[in-house]
Amino acid sequence: MEGWSSTAARREFIFMKKEFIKGKKLKNRSSYLSSDDDMVDITTTGTTAEGTLPKDLQFSTQDSEDIPGIGQYEDFHTIDWQRDIARDRMRHRYIVKKKKNSFLDTVKGAHDAWSGWLCVFLVGVVTGTVAGIIDIGSSWMSDLKFGICPDAFWLNMEQCCWSSNETTFGGVKGNCSQWRMWSEIFGSSRVGLWAYIVSYLSFIIFALSFAALAAGLVRVFAPYACGSGVPEIKTILGGFIIRGYLGKWTLIIKSIGIMLAVSAGLTLGKEGPMVHIASCIGNILTYLFPKYGKNEAKKREILSAAAAAGVSVAFGAPIGGVLFSLEEVSYYFPLKTLWRSFFCALIAAFVLRSINPFGNEHSVLYFVEYNKPWNFFELIPFIGLGVIGGCIATIFIKANVYWCRRRKATKLGQYPVTEVLVITAVTAVLSFPNPYSRMSMSQLIYLLFSQCGPSSSDGLCDYVYVSDNTSFETATSAEAGPGVYRAILLLLLTLVLKLVTVIFTFGIKIPCGLFIPSLCLGSIAGRIVGIGMQQLAFRYPHLWIFNGECDNSDDCITPGLYAMVGAAAVLGGITRMTVSLVVIMFELTGGVRYIVPLMAAAMASKWVGDALGKQGIYDAHIGLNGYPFLDSKEEFSHTGLAADVMQPKRGATLNVLTQDSMTVSEVESLMKRTDHNGFPVVVSQESQYLVGYVLKRDLMLAIANFRRNHEYFDEHAIVIFTSTSPQQSINAPPFLKLKKILDMAPITITDQTPMETVIDMFRKLGLRQTLVTHNGRLLGIITKKDVLRYVRQLGNEDPSSVLFT
Amino acid sequence: MEGWSSTAARREFIFMKKEFIKGKKLKNRSSYLSSDDDMVDITTTGTTAEGTLPKDLQFSTQDSEDIPGIGQYEDFHTIDWQRDIARDRMRHRYIVKKKKNSFLDTVKGAHDAWSGWLCVFLVGVVTGTVAGIIDIGSSWMSDLKFGICPDAFWLNMEQCCWSSNETTFGGVKGNCSQWRMWSEIFGSSRVGLWAYIVSYLSFIIFALSFAALAAGLVRVFAPYACGSGVPEIKTILGGFIIRGYLGKWTLIIKSIGIMLAVSAGLTLGKEGPMVHIASCIGNILTYLFPKYGKNEAKKREILSAAAAAGVSVAFGAPIGGVLFSLEEVSYYFPLKTLWRSFFCALIAAFVLRSINPFGNEHSVLYFVEYNKPWNFFELIPFIGLGVIGGCIATIFIKANVYWCRRRKATKLGQYPVTEVLVITAVTAVLSFPNPYSRMSMSQLIYLLFSQCGPSSSDGLCDYVYVSDNTSFETATSAEAGPGVYRAILLLLLTLVLKLVTVIFTFGIKIPCGLFIPSLCLGSIAGRIVGIGMQQLAFRYPHLWIFNGECDNSDDCITPGLYAMVGAAAVLGGITRMTVSLVVIMFELTGGVRYIVPLMAAAMASKWVGDALGKQGIYDAHIGLNGYPFLDSKEEFSHTGLAADVMQPKRGATLNVLTQDSMTVSEVESLMKRTDHNGFPVVVSQESQYLVGYVLKRDLMLAIANFRRNHEYFDEHAIVIFTSTSPQQSINAPPFLKLKKILDMAPITITDQTPMETVIDMFRKLGLRQTLVTHNGRLLGIITKKDVLRYVRQLGNEDPSSVLFT
Repeated sequence: MEGWSSTAARREFIFMKKEFIKGKKLKNRSSYLSSDDDMVDITTTGTTAEGTLPKDLQFSTQDSEDIPGIGQYEDFHTIDWQRDIARDRMRHRYIVKKKKNSFLDTVKGAHDAWSGWLCVFLVGVVTGTVAGIIDIGSSWMSDLKFGICPDAFWLNMEQCCWSSNETTFGGVKGNCSQWRMWSEIFGSSRVGLWAYIVSYLSFIIFALSFAALAAGLVRVFAPYACGSGVPEIKTILGGFIIRGYLGKWTLIIKSIGIMLAVSAGLTLGKEGPMVHIASCIGNILTYLFPKYGKNEAKKREILSAAAAAGVSVAFGAPIGGVLFSLEEVSYYFPLKTLWRSFFCALIAAFVLRSINPFGNEHSVLYFVEYNKPWNFFELIPFIGLGVIGGCIATIFIKANVYWCRRRKATKLGQYPVTEVLVITAVTAVLSFPNPYSRMSMSQLIYLLFSQCGPSSSDGLCDYVYVSDNTSFETATSAEAGPGVYRAILLLLLTLVLKLVTVIFTFGIKIPCGLFIPSLCLGSIAGRIVGIGMQQLAFRYPHLWIFNGECDNSDDCITPGLYAMVGAAAVLGGITRMTVSLVVIMFELTGGVRYIVPLMAAAMASKWVGDALGKQGIYDAHIGLNGYPFLDSKEEFSHTGLAADVMQPKRGATLNVLTQDSMTVSEVESLMKRTDHNGFPVVVSQESQYLVGYVLKRDLMLAIANFRRNHEYFDEHAIVIFTSTSPQQSINAPPFLKLKKILDMAPITITDQTPMETVIDMFRKLGLRQTLVTHNGRLLGIITKKDVLRYVRQLGNEDPSSVLFT
Repeated sequence: MEGWSSTAARREFIFMKKEFIKGKKLKNRSSYLSSDDDMVDITTTGTTAEGTLPKDLQFSTQDSEDIPGIGQYEDFHTIDWQRDIARDRMRHRYIVKKKKNSFLDTVKGAHDAWSGWLCVFLVGVVTGTVAGIIDIGSSWMSDLKFGICPDAFWLNMEQCCWSSNETTFGGVKGNCSQWRMWSEIFGSSRVGLWAYIVSYLSFIIFALSFAALAAGLVRVFAPYACGSGVPEIKTILGGFIIRGYLGKWTLIIKSIGIMLAVSAGLTLGKEGPMVHIASCIGNILTYLFPKYGKNEAKKREILSAAAAAGVSVAFGAPIGGVLFSLEEVSYYFPLKTLWRSFFCALIAAFVLRSINPFGNEHSVLYFVEYNKPWNFFELIPFIGLGVIGGCIATIFIKANVYWCRRRKATKLGQYPVTEVLVITAVTAVLSFPNPYSRMSMSQLIYLLFSQCGPSSSDGLCDYVYVSDNTSFETATSAEAGPGVYRAILLLLLTLVLKLVTVIFTFGIKIPCGLFIPSLCLGSIAGRIVGIGMQQLAFRYPHLWIFNGECDNSDDCITPGLYAMVGAAAVLGGITRMTVSLVVIMFELTGGVRYIVPLMAAAMASKWVGDALGKQGIYDAHIGLNGYPFLDSKEEFSHTGLAADVMQPKRGATLNVLTQDSMTVSEVESLMKRTDHNGFPVVVSQESQYLVGYVLKRDLMLAIANFRRNHEYFDEHAIVIFTSTSPQQSINAPPFLKLKKILDMAPITITDQTPMETVIDMFRKLGLRQTLVTHNGRLLGIITKKDVLRYVRQLGNEDPSSVLFT
């Protein structure tokens, strides 16, 4: 059985004391365990279905407000899905039954039936709105590093320049007259060394202040607001309780923090945190709907939908969001949730589009339209890009995990704000001189994805057109000019810089996501490979590889497409997403024709990644933090049996209750002596045939209640879990009848069950523990923690690293 | 326990006899149960994982070719997912272990690891190819009803007219000179009464011959080739065996039959059967890969992917196909399958596009591009369309189910070919006069989805343009001319005709799908509503509903969009698809901007449908045919307990084996007396504590083997299932030790377990049976059939209708 650490036990004890105090208040208004007679009443009708679950669950439909802590779990505990779902069924049945009584009940019933839809609708609306605010805020603050719009300081560079009709492509440089760079304000000049120094300094100062503010806010108000949040949300959706992780403070601080962090120019994205923010919104809104708010298993349905909405607003990709939620983060995903998630994701995307934070008609974030379809032979470089992406991803994951582990182990972890500031300063100082690393990553991706056209002024498009026809439409493939080579050099520097900084950035104590950095790394690698292929095709058009398809010198290679494929490859390698990745990329770019290249690269990248490192970054961080997450994707090739894993180990004795022979004091001393969550009930100490399972918590409440109701409380009263009482002398104290808190349908397995089946049952049925029997006789118990420890042990990891308290 | 009908029992008995004969051949070359000593050998090492599953499973890794029938199931039986997956794990472990031995084994290991991907790749390629052939064939034969291309008879009308440069939009009418209508060939005229009569007659004659051929082929060669196949595939994927349903004959006849049936002009589509065809391909190709072909649970992973490929080629919608497979047909869908399904669907779509059956650059089937986005107020008519769609769908489902039930109950069912011919004749006679019903449904949908442009010559676009600007670009919204009203009338007639004919058509004994008829019905209704809205907006532009958005008379309403939304609504109402529907529609039309309207209509339609009828057409047909499908979507609001459902009922005795006290003759007489699939093994008759579960089939094979190996076979030999033998006198016959065929880890539940939990376990763990205990003592058994009967009973259906033999 579970060996709780002493802190946990102490905390539980304090909690239980509070419960007792609360319990007293209930005495007169709740029928919950109010008298012994009442119990007998129910117990005699115990052969109906209502008799099969702990009675407290049944009352919860009527008195769920009255009974404190029913269906609630303590912090850092796993939930029991079966129990929660059973509770919800009971509640549902009660409402359906009551529906016919009065009009009000009918309305209540209808509200109950609709509350799921209403809740995801609200989640969608709020998520869309919050995402809009974050987009506007971060875009404005990012530009604040460069300058300001004096006429209307609340406008960002792009908006500021709209009125002037001199806006540049992609708004990369603020060269319209309305927009004033800091060098103009402080030095009344846009060019020259002094202007450069002013710009450089203001860039660094703003970056540092944003980062300091973000780190400070996180440290003071909401320590849970740091990081991407995806590993934690995976764990929470897998059935773990982390109180406050999805609370209102986390929401507020994470929303502000991510704006600041993005604006500080750090190598991080706001897309991962958006999933966390959406989940916070989902969690907070469930409190409006007790059906979800008071049932941890049902709440996770809403959280799955919220996660989908988060990705949906991050990328404008509702279908991708749903698939992300299904593939990456969710654990229990019934089909009803699929449809609701889709609805939620769509509403969120719709609201965000109505807010129109970028002030333009972008229907997709990085809309691309290339003149040429891809050629079949290009699958070879695309798969090559997949391999490169897999390697970059593996380098990142290994280095980042190593660094995070080091941070945890050394003193470094004690100075989170300093760490943030140092990284910000280094990033800012190194980024500014290089135009590609200076611009925001989102702009850089946009630039790299795009194809060279008449309006492209960037060095990347500095081609020497040899043909007479100078129209860009017919001749984009040409000899690269010096600008292109310079751009490649700068991009390579940017690639190295971003890769190094992201390794140190992911894991610091501010909100930070990985999607945009991954896409950015990949698009740089992809664009470089694309230009290489293009020049190869230009110089040696008759090479076998081109299969005669590049003979006429018009563009047979589009470097922008390579950037897109490379981006997918790195993101795929880092997150190990598959279908959702392809769908997100395709929704992100509108490139329905490029699904096959994207898929080829994503597959190659995933395979390379799996071959080199096994785990994606989220799973690696789950392992790093010791979250108790039972991955439903892993395959086990072990040969253990339930008998090998169960507690107690051979030789030790199992702590059990007997059905009708233990006294209250014996039960209480057993509870004090051990720190288990619950106890199996057996026929007798001599014949340990399993009768049921009782939760420690229920037992404590029941005994406390009994103690209150019987003034002459006798420690020697016998606790019985059967419906018929054994014979006893008249002078003996009255029985404490507890059949109604006994779960008579615990899940059992035999000791010879292979661990694979056991793990399968834990995963699919969402168990918290299972009882192990041999020929009907109780042998032991396996809890989720035992299973997790076993899985860790198989992976040659430290089994004691599993976080459970 | 299961009460097998006597035919089933007889069949099983015949089967077993065959097994015995086969078994004799094995005697010398297989180690399977070869000698008693061998058994003892293994039994002594029985505490490792290898000891936990029936030994036959363990040998199957090495000798799977040698042992007949291992892991195979009989026809119309359910599979045991846990057992099959355990077998696969064992096989996998064996290969991994062996991999290090030699280079050949390494290659074998790599082949094994890749075989899943290779298999789905092949499935994709073959599915794409077959779909291409069907597309080309059905298009050619459909046009053959109207005429022929004398210069090149293998060309269809559209291709024939290409060379002439006089092709009409959509190829609806064969008015180019190369294409000769039958009236021209037989009457040397294209117009006039005589020409009309010739055309009419040739139309009917071709339709009847196609239909007769299709019905005849199905009747003679492959009775399973009829219908859409989706309900059966759902059932098969749910873990049921229907031999031959996915065989090569079914594949061939269904492919030919669907071409003929579509060409016959019946109200049916080829999209549903495409799912069946793809599944056949998947099933056939698994035989190349024993990993999948010999393991029913693993085979279903490939079948899920194949189903996705089927939808992918039917609509050119790979993502929609995967979601369809996930949402609608699949049962066990691990994430690995998601990725493989996507790959398979994509390959299939890619191959089909490379074949390019329509000879043009259609990247999507019904590509639409409307000038205007939709307005917010239009959500009201869209939801209205959803309601209409839900009603049409309910009418269809109820009438069709009623008619199918009637067909089954009356003599009608005995004349399937006649029925096909009558329906074909009626459809052809009634369809020809009306141009909208005469054209193929696919063309009609294309026409209805499209917006009126300069090239549209159809009556639907006969608008009177009042503005001076006659450009279609700026003024498509205008007063409807007489042509529009005539078109509406004809469309209404078409709607009624199609609705009536589809009710009688779906269920006749030829291949027939429902997607295209549903889309067609919906698009007619939608177009009519759209024209109505358009005229309303034209006449009363200042109505509150238009919210000032239709003030300037340019097109604020696009009737084509309404057709698209209506199509989604009816299809959604009929199939109850949700996310997959929206994604398919969006991939089908390329209308990424119209996800919100599509979703609104699909939701409204599903809710209306659920309120009126509960089941979609596939589930209704599963119920109608009594397929043993345990729907994972249904919710149960009952309060039954395992004790109420288990066999034997109270009072009756349970047939069990004891672990070490029954003689061979007693065991054999028990097996003869009962027709159960397997028997629980208990400690003794007096103390019925559960030891394990043994399959009847294994038991019969083992006893037969024992009988062969012991020349002086004694009927009184004791069968023992323990590792230690009880004491006995020296003269007694040797024990028959059967520990190795005993499953020592059967899934058990207590009698107090609510049926909801039991059903959940059956669904999620894929059980075939579970044993019911009370305080460790065996009480009874619940099989999948008992669960299905119970579910039927709750739905007030006849529980004996469950098909199991």
